[in-house]
Amino acid sequence: MCPALDHYTRQFLPAVEAEIKAILESDHPSYKVYYGMMHYHLGWVDAGLGSESGTAGKRIRPLICLLVCDAASGNWEQAVPAAAAIELLHNFSLIHDDIEDGSRTRRGRKTVWELWGVPQAINAGDSMFSSAYAALARVADRGVAAETTVDSLQVFAQACVQLTKGQHLDMRYETQVSVDVEQYLQMIAGKTAALISATSEIGAIIASSEPEKRRHFAEFGRNVGLAFQAHDDVLGIWGNETTVGKSTVSDILTRKKTLPVVYGLAQSSELRDLYAGAQLDVQRAVDLLEAAGAKDYAMAAVDRYSEAAMAHLAKAHPAGPAGDALRKLTTQLVKRQS
Amino acid sequence: MCPALDHYTRQFLPAVEAEIKAILESDHPSYKVYYGMMHYHLGWVDAGLGSESGTAGKRIRPLICLLVCDAASGNWEQAVPAAAAIELLHNFSLIHDDIEDGSRTRRGRKTVWELWGVPQAINAGDSMFSSAYAALARVADRGVAAETTVDSLQVFAQACVQLTKGQHLDMRYETQVSVDVEQYLQMIAGKTAALISATSEIGAIIASSEPEKRRHFAEFGRNVGLAFQAHDDVLGIWGNETTVGKSTVSDILTRKKTLPVVYGLAQSSELRDLYAGAQLDVQRAVDLLEAAGAKDYAMAAVDRYSEAAMAHLAKAHPAGPAGDALRKLTTQLVKRQS
Repeated sequence: MCPALDHYTRQFLPAVEAEIKAILESDHPSYKVYYGMMHYHLGWVDAGLGSESGTAGKRIRPLICLLVCDAASGNWEQAVPAAAAIELLHNFSLIHDDIEDGSRTRRGRKTVWELWGVPQAINAGDSMFSSAYAALARVADRGVAAETTVDSLQVFAQACVQLTKGQHLDMRYETQVSVDVEQYLQMIAGKTAALISATSEIGAIIASSEPEKRRHFAEFGRNVGLAFQAHDDVLGIWGNETTVGKSTVSDILTRKKTLPVVYGLAQSSELRDLYAGAQLDVQRAVDLLEAAGAKDYAMAAVDRYSEAAMAHLAKAHPAGPAGDALRKLTTQLVKRQS
Repeated sequence: MCPALDHYTRQFLPAVEAEIKAILESDHPSYKVYYGMMHYHLGWVDAGLGSESGTAGKRIRPLICLLVCDAASGNWEQAVPAAAAIELLHNFSLIHDDIEDGSRTRRGRKTVWELWGVPQAINAGDSMFSSAYAALARVADRGVAAETTVDSLQVFAQACVQLTKGQHLDMRYETQVSVDVEQYLQMIAGKTAALISATSEIGAIIASSEPEKRRHFAEFGRNVGLAFQAHDDVLGIWGNETTVGKSTVSDILTRKKTLPVVYGLAQSSELRDLYAGAQLDVQRAVDLLEAAGAKDYAMAAVDRYSEAAMAHLAKAHPAGPAGDALRKLTTQLVKRQS
C-alpha cells in the first residue's frame, strides 16, 4: 500500500480516460464502427459495441507522465492530453502487434483483427496512432507554451520511430538463430523503454524542467522500461499463468528471444541444439535455462535497471508525495511474482 | 508546358527528396532492412536493397505545399520538412493500403508486403508514419516559430484522422450494396482530399498567411483533391491502361464504389441487378454505366471541383509565378486522358 500512489491513481486516471473519450468521440453515425473498434480495444464496450465494459489496461504510462509532471512541480492537468497521447500510442502498437504476432486474444477477449479482420484492424491501429497526435496537439489548449509543445512533439515523434525499430528487430529475431544480449537490449530499448522514457520526459518538459532534470526523468523512464521488460521476460517463462494472464509456455514455443533465452543460448550448447531442432520440448528448455543460471541472470538485470531508475529519480529531485508514488510504482512494476 | 511549374519542380523536388533521405538515413547496421523497406517503397533501391532505382511517385503533395508557401510570399525552404512529412504520410498510407487491398504490385514493382510479408510491412508503414511526424518536427530547425509549428501539427494530425476515416469507409463500402453520392463524397473527402487540403494549408501556415487566405488555400487543396479523385475514378474505368498504369477492369471487378458506379447504381436498376449477382460482366457494366450517363456525370463533377479549386486559389491572391504554377498543376492533375 502506498497512500500517495493510490490517491494519485484515483485522481489522474479518470482525467486521462475522460480526455481519451473526448478525442475518440464519434462525430457522425458513419463512424460508429470506426470509433467502436478503438472503444472495444480500450475495454469500454463489448464486441457488439454495447456498453458492457471489458478489462482496460493498467494505464501505467499516462500515470508516470502525470506523476513526473507533478513531482517536477508542474501543473499535471496541463499534461493530461500528452498522457492520453502516450496511452493511445501504446494501444496503437498493441493492435498492430496482435496482427503481426497472430494473437487471437488479449486480456481475455478476442483481438481487434480476430473480430473485424486484418484490413480493418490495420486501419484501426492507424486511427489510434493518428488520434495520439491529435491528443498531443491538445496540450496547446491547456495553456502549454508553443515551444514546450514543440519540445514534446520532438520527444514523442522520436519515441514512435524507436518503437517501430524495436518491433522490427523483435520480429526479425524470431527467425534469427543467434541473438546476443547486446542485440536484445537494442530491441527492448526501442520496443519498451523508448515510450516509458518519453512519457516521463514529456511530464518533465510540460513542468518546464531544466535540461538536467529532464534528462534524469528520461533516464528514469528508460530504466523502468528495461527493468519492466526483463521482468516480463522472466514471468513469460516462470510466472504464475493466472497472474500473468498468458500461457507460460508460449514464449518458449514461439522461440522468442527474451533475456533469459538469449543468455541461456550463449551459455548452453545443449539449449542451442534444442532451439535448432524442429520440435521444442518446453520442460527440457526450462530445465536447461535454469541450469545455465538464466533466470538468476535476468532477475539480476531487473534489479540493476530498477536501481538505475531509482538513482536517476533521486537525481531528478522529485518533489512531495508524487516522488514517493513514483518510487512505489517502480517497485510494483518489477516485484517478484514468480 | 508551363515554364514556371517546370522551374519550381526542378528546384523543389530535389530539396524534398534530400530532406526525406536525411530523415530515413540508417544510423546502425541493425536497421538496414528497417530503412531498406522504406527506401524500396520510395523507389530509391531495388528489392535486394541495391542502388538500382525504381519509379518514384510524382510527389504532387509536397510540390503543392512548397508552391503555396511561395505563392503566399513565404520562404519555401522553411516548409521543406513539412512537405517531406506530407509525402511520408502519403506513402505510409500506400504501404498499408496495399496490404488492406491485397495488391501485389505498385508502380510496376512488387509491393512491400509481397516482398517482406504482412507483419514486417505493417511495421514498415508504421515506421513511415512515425518518420512523417519526425519530419514535421524539423520545421523548428528552419526558424519556423513554435506557434506556427503547433498550428501545422494540428492541421497535420487532423488530416491523419480524416485519412483513416476515409479508408475505413472505403473498405466498408466494398461489401455494402447501397452507397449514395453523399456517402461517396464523405469517403473521398477523408481518403484523398484531407491530405491535399492539409498540404496546401500548411504551406500557407508556414508563410504566416492570415486566416482568410489560409482558409482559401485549404479549400483550394480540398477541391483539387476531390477533382483528382473523381477524375481518377473515371480513368479507372475509361482510362488508357498504359497511361493509367493499372487494369481498367479491376475497379469494376472488385465492385469499388467509385463516383460513376455510385451514380450509375442509383440510376439503373439493371446495373443494380448486375452488381447484386455473383458474376459481374465488365463490358455489360461499362455499357450500362455509359447508358446511365455516369461518365458524363463524373466528368461534370471533376469540372465543378476544378473550378471551385481555381476560385479559391484566386481568392487566396497567390503572388508571382508560383500562382501560375499552381493553376497549371491543377489543370494537369485533372486533364482528360480518357
